Amino acid sequence: MKKIEHIGIAVRDLAKANDLFARLLGREHYKIEEVASEGVRTSFFELGESKIELLAASSDDSPIAKFLAKRGEGIHHIAFAVEDIWAEMKRLEAEGFRPLQEEPREGADGKLVAFFHPKTAGGVLVEICQDKPLE
Amino acid sequence: MKKIEHIGIAVRDLAKANDLFARLLGREHYKIEEVASEGVRTSFFELGESKIELLAASSDDSPIAKFLAKRGEGIHHIAFAVEDIWAEMKRLEAEGFRPLQEEPREGADGKLVAFFHPKTAGGVLVEICQDKPLE
Repeated sequence: MKKIEHIGIAVRDLAKANDLFARLLGREHYKIEEVASEGVRTSFFELGESKIELLAASSDDSPIAKFLAKRGEGIHHIAFAVEDIWAEMKRLEAEGFRPLQEEPREGADGKLVAFFHPKTAGGVLVEICQDKPLE
Repeated sequence: MKKIEHIGIAVRDLAKANDLFARLLGREHYKIEEVASEGVRTSFFELGESKIELLAASSDDSPIAKFLAKRGEGIHHIAFAVEDIWAEMKRLEAEGFRPLQEEPREGADGKLVAFFHPKTAGGVLVEICQDKPLE
């Protein structure tokens, strides 16, 4: 784990949340990105070496829609930047952290991502990510 | 806001959580600190320019004990480093974020800290902090 790459925050209304977090952080979001495969619309704020990622559901069966229904708005996950996501997946699995997918998949912001179950990680939904290799 | 200073994670058992997060992060915690005024024992892991702070209740009426009873283990707050905590408190209050205290107070890790109500900050318990000025 190299650094906190971002903190993901579940929000109901992306436009309202962009305004709220701009006032909190004292800066505007720098992009909005739709991740259709996850059923989310995301926006990003830069903060030092990390980012704040706001996550709004774009479909009713999105994991974010389910999270909002169960817990309400708030922090959804922490993402850690790693050097080698395949090696790190193996290492974490051997340490008892349960991955939520068999292979890394494409996430927002040009990343390969993998998630680990909060029940195995102190109640924290953990994401690891790395930049996608050039093709 | 300069950077994510730390992410606070509520845990039931600090020794077990130190072991779990050492395996997750691939490094040991670098210190344990009791903050008697808050009813918490904390431990810290370095990660890039940020930290992970584990928080265990040291008394039954600790805010962490209440959080654990209501939500279980997991992410408790995000702390942002600021240049001038008094100026930033004023700015955030003027923007509609409700402080949980009138003046900054002493927190863990040699900081002055102030918290803002999650209901006014998208469901996120927000801390701002700065190093205590030398006396």
